[in-house]
Amino acid sequence: MIKAGIIGATGYAGAELARLLANHREAEVIWYGSHSYVGQEYTQIYQNMYEIADSTCLDDNMAEVARQADIIFTATPQGLCASLIQEDILSGTKVIDLSADFRIKDVKKYEAWYSIQHPAPQFIDEAVYGLCEINRDQIRNARLIANPGCYPTCSILSIYPLLKEGFLDPSTIIIDAKSGVSGAGRGAKTDNLFCEVNENIKAYGAATHRHTPEIEDQLSIAAGEDLVISFTPHLVPMNRGILVTAYASLTKEHENADYAQLREIYDHYYQKETFVRVLEKDVYPQTRWVRGSNYVDVNFQIDPRTHRIILMGAMDNLIKGAAGQAVQNMNLMFGLDERTGLESIPLFP
Amino acid sequence: MIKAGIIGATGYAGAELARLLANHREAEVIWYGSHSYVGQEYTQIYQNMYEIADSTCLDDNMAEVARQADIIFTATPQGLCASLIQEDILSGTKVIDLSADFRIKDVKKYEAWYSIQHPAPQFIDEAVYGLCEINRDQIRNARLIANPGCYPTCSILSIYPLLKEGFLDPSTIIIDAKSGVSGAGRGAKTDNLFCEVNENIKAYGAATHRHTPEIEDQLSIAAGEDLVISFTPHLVPMNRGILVTAYASLTKEHENADYAQLREIYDHYYQKETFVRVLEKDVYPQTRWVRGSNYVDVNFQIDPRTHRIILMGAMDNLIKGAAGQAVQNMNLMFGLDERTGLESIPLFP
Amino acid sequence: MIKAGIIGATGYAGAELARLLANHREAEVIWYGSHSYVGQEYTQIYQNMYEIADSTCLDDNMAEVARQADIIFTATPQGLCASLIQEDILSGTKVIDLSADFRIKDVKKYEAWYSIQHPAPQFIDEAVYGLCEINRDQIRNARLIANPGCYPTCSILSIYPLLKEGFLDPSTIIIDAKSGVSGAGRGAKTDNLFCEVNENIKAYGAATHRHTPEIEDQLSIAAGEDLVISFTPHLVPMNRGILVTAYASLTKEHENADYAQLREIYDHYYQKETFVRVLEKDVYPQTRWVRGSNYVDVNFQIDPRTHRIILMGAMDNLIKGAAGQAVQNMNLMFGLDERTGLESIPLFP
Amino acid sequence: MIKAGIIGATGYAGAELARLLANHREAEVIWYGSHSYVGQEYTQIYQNMYEIADSTCLDDNMAEVARQADIIFTATPQGLCASLIQEDILSGTKVIDLSADFRIKDVKKYEAWYSIQHPAPQFIDEAVYGLCEINRDQIRNARLIANPGCYPTCSILSIYPLLKEGFLDPSTIIIDAKSGVSGAGRGAKTDNLFCEVNENIKAYGAATHRHTPEIEDQLSIAAGEDLVISFTPHLVPMNRGILVTAYASLTKEHENADYAQLREIYDHYYQKETFVRVLEKDVYPQTRWVRGSNYVDVNFQIDPRTHRIILMGAMDNLIKGAAGQAVQNMNLMFGLDERTGLESIPLFP
Repeated sequence: MIKAGIIGATGYAGAELARLLANHREAEVIWYGSHSYVGQEYTQIYQNMYEIADSTCLDDNMAEVARQADIIFTATPQGLCASLIQEDILSGTKVIDLSADFRIKDVKKYEAWYSIQHPAPQFIDEAVYGLCEINRDQIRNARLIANPGCYPTCSILSIYPLLKEGFLDPSTIIIDAKSGVSGAGRGAKTDNLFCEVNENIKAYGAATHRHTPEIEDQLSIAAGEDLVISFTPHLVPMNRGILVTAYASLTKEHENADYAQLREIYDHYYQKETFVRVLEKDVYPQTRWVRGSNYVDVNFQIDPRTHRIILMGAMDNLIKGAAGQAVQNMNLMFGLDERTGLESIPLFP
Repeated sequence: MIKAGIIGATGYAGAELARLLANHREAEVIWYGSHSYVGQEYTQIYQNMYEIADSTCLDDNMAEVARQADIIFTATPQGLCASLIQEDILSGTKVIDLSADFRIKDVKKYEAWYSIQHPAPQFIDEAVYGLCEINRDQIRNARLIANPGCYPTCSILSIYPLLKEGFLDPSTIIIDAKSGVSGAGRGAKTDNLFCEVNENIKAYGAATHRHTPEIEDQLSIAAGEDLVISFTPHLVPMNRGILVTAYASLTKEHENADYAQLREIYDHYYQKETFVRVLEKDVYPQTRWVRGSNYVDVNFQIDPRTHRIILMGAMDNLIKGAAGQAVQNMNLMFGLDERTGLESIPLFP
Repeated sequence: MIKAGIIGATGYAGAELARLLANHREAEVIWYGSHSYVGQEYTQIYQNMYEIADSTCLDDNMAEVARQADIIFTATPQGLCASLIQEDILSGTKVIDLSADFRIKDVKKYEAWYSIQHPAPQFIDEAVYGLCEINRDQIRNARLIANPGCYPTCSILSIYPLLKEGFLDPSTIIIDAKSGVSGAGRGAKTDNLFCEVNENIKAYGAATHRHTPEIEDQLSIAAGEDLVISFTPHLVPMNRGILVTAYASLTKEHENADYAQLREIYDHYYQKETFVRVLEKDVYPQTRWVRGSNYVDVNFQIDPRTHRIILMGAMDNLIKGAAGQAVQNMNLMFGLDERTGLESIPLFP
Repeated sequence: MIKAGIIGATGYAGAELARLLANHREAEVIWYGSHSYVGQEYTQIYQNMYEIADSTCLDDNMAEVARQADIIFTATPQGLCASLIQEDILSGTKVIDLSADFRIKDVKKYEAWYSIQHPAPQFIDEAVYGLCEINRDQIRNARLIANPGCYPTCSILSIYPLLKEGFLDPSTIIIDAKSGVSGAGRGAKTDNLFCEVNENIKAYGAATHRHTPEIEDQLSIAAGEDLVISFTPHLVPMNRGILVTAYASLTKEHENADYAQLREIYDHYYQKETFVRVLEKDVYPQTRWVRGSNYVDVNFQIDPRTHRIILMGAMDNLIKGAAGQAVQNMNLMFGLDERTGLESIPLFP
């Protein structure tokens, strides 16, 4: 049994990790770390785990967790994981960081977008960007995983194949993303109250959202050149789910490509992937069909009038966009079948 | 592997059965029966099953299903199962009927409340009311199960222990129930459109809902006398979930009973039950904590001013209230661990 | 023009008052009082009022408001209005208190249910319970109005006629109420976050909710005897709306009364009332049909099997249940047509 | 009093017209036309109008309506208005068509996108595109108004000033729009059931939606050249509201324009407009702040990294996007204050 510690187990992403690991036949949670609920029964906070988990919330003493656990998940605010991590810890334990601390290789860029000083830049190079479908091999041997952000996971997987194969003009990428409210966390903020979110849709952080450089970094690697994108997230009145609608111009040489041609590229990249489902022609991704699962559904639509392509992806932000991908990474790091503990079929309706 | 046929696999309850059985390690669905979608790919209708199920919808030829399947689930409108069932079928196959056809032992009562003539009254006596926690032993040996209704399951399990033990005045039971919209099925009716249900709550079928006699029958057995209840269901703007708030007067001799005393009764009945969770004192059942699982959460509150008790229960109407209980029944009938395929932890948020 | 001051203008009820008064042709808001947002533009907090209101939030200096305003509305937490009110204020200004401070005539009862000491018991007797349809005449001449609670308004209006006329057994009244989330206020609490409320229904405060004695007091007056009730509120995932489902036994002498007979009573009480709509037979109140208006829709269903009657009422909790009723009271106090500023037709969908 | 007839009064847009006109002091509805509910009480279908409207649904005999009414609103499926309209009708009555029949000047384009033959092309030239803020003068003298579509209204008003003034590269416009479900109408379709829409977001009609040519036509007029756009609508789980997020590249000469400069353009176009509110810098439009009103809130964000601008607009799709704009058009046509009957302040929450 893999002994897992969760630092930040009482946020939504941490709680989803706890839920997934409770049904994982090769792992068990031995540390429910929390900032706000130390000493309380975990199941008093997450009543869904009543009679399933039986533990008291502990603090976020990472060194102590490292002594007891084979793997540590940090589902914590920016900067916390980096401020606690040390060579001692990494030498004996694996770490999967669900925050952004190790996602961006350029520390100056990180500090500019996140407005904090990076507390542990010495580990940035070593950290592997844990997007399993793309970096599977490095993940297997990593000690430290930078678990991708929710918007980046959905955006990158939707765009990656065609960009990598040179079908998209890298200067034209626009990502219009829509997220359920659990992505905003469990902090008690007026803006996230039911009455403020329900019957509402809004954009936020247009041109300034922190996931922008993360997406750009990964897409730049795919494109083989530095690119900038437009990225606008929106808040949708639903609990779970992210939908990405991305726009790009087809490159001149491919501007008359048809669906079948482009579909072949998608299939080449994804047909062996369990967790990326390329939908049938004219069937668009919808969050309802992936909720509660680790799937990302993708598809695209060609617009012959504008020579643009509309690339779409849908996933559960708390699973493939956070806790599920973290478990997938853990599975890879411990030599397990990548799908272990992630067998849930999307819950509909 | 148990071969299962589903008649009515494209309604919400049938689809939930398909989903649960797809993750059941001892069973597989070999017949996706449908009235409206014969010949269509199942995954075109339920896109969540894309790349999971790989089947075309078949018709509702029950005799043919019986030849191929070890068990048949009928998730169909009232009267259909009863009109198709025959001794031939039952002699070779087990049947779990998710409709109300075999739930009410008094055929006249059935016909009065459902306004249809019963097509197969000869099987009513044999049918076992499949509320596992109460009729477990008879279920194991049954050929034909009347799978309980959603409101009855939640109502009965909430009230049963105290009524059976004589703490409740049988003439005072009032059940005010609230259900998510999936309980209304997938038929395209104006009343169930998003804009009609969202931002709305309403009662319906007050004093006339068909689940009334079903609840009365089972509670009468518990009470050892015939009783009538008031039952009012409500439609709540959410997909899944039933909450029951029931009221009853404590019997004279017990009118000063305290929580601990009554709690002991509950524990006596439910502490060995996996799927009934008696919550801690002052923690009320909420549908969010059971969604996506087979659990029923129950608890109660004593009102010393009125000598009434408020009994509460929450569950997922499509799982413990329909498909999950059907799988639980199947497990019992085939000698499996009752929990097989029902391990899902409630999905929150 | 009536000059109105609102203390607590940045909560949901206060904001609804501001909105209603902005469209009231005989009144204007001259003081937007706030505890948390003093000095901020009101329209930065309530963006719906952008280019409509043009004011900065002021503090809750009631004496100063009294000097400037003809009427003061207090939409504030329990105890605040009572702690600020004085004879000086009341001698020059009218006050409508939307909190519970002056609703309960028995100060001990108030203190027991609200767990605070009443700061100004000397005004309790004078205060008029502002349920316009019942106490219209006293309201006209009042200096101090105790504006009714949301649950009490809907409960009392649903039950009043039949109770007053002796058709209901006073010892059997059970009120199962369901409210939208705006009733819980705009405070930033985890329990009211979107993800906690959405896809959920729960009971809360069963047998202990503070609106219980308020309902009992008013119904006792109607019944002509002291009565106790069971009252259970529920939280429904919607912004606005309260639905009351109440149960009572018909008195022995009336236990065979039919719909037409009882309907006559309702019509007698309400046919001249603009804001109480008695629906047609078999049409149940639903919150969608009253949202955004000052209407209460009521109806009832007789259950001949149990000799109980199910009484139902629906209204918008922020309007008839708070701000709208306060405006209705103001209209009465200033000799205006009671409907002024309350002409909005329910917004559907 | 203006006598108004509504053909299609039982759809959501028609019902919203009926609601607005019931509160309009210069108009009254004298014909509630319906296809599906002829002979039924209007208030049985729209219970919000109970005791307010008092009429029976009539048929869609446009010639007869024309004899009785001063103005006819057609809130009907594509092709119906055009198939009924005649010179006789127009010579005695004004017509505001809420369908798309007269919005597109090029009949071939109309027929290509709508897949129907235009039944009355002779009236296309005469019809005025009823976007009041842009075509106010022609509207005043029109007999036949093509009331704009919901997406076009919000899109055009968000983009118009900067495009017209030459700040946007016309070849780069991408519109990502999000709509509440009432935009899909009241037809009983499985896809619009509560359980299918709730907890879901999806794109639909990418690159093929029928509002595309309508937006292109109007933006081409503004730009002074033919342009094509990318347009992707999305369905959001809420009743009302449209949010437009549009992307465009700043033209070379203006690529370093700052907020103040562009804001001046917006103010120039909109500061005298009651129903277009340009929000303060960094405040984004949200549908919750316009719901229930005729407002469009607009604003924009410059992205200096990509030299793109993100243009945003929010409105209530049933009011400014349909019935409210129709009333605004009627007011203009009859020489009334444009705001008559449209004074509602947005209802929040």
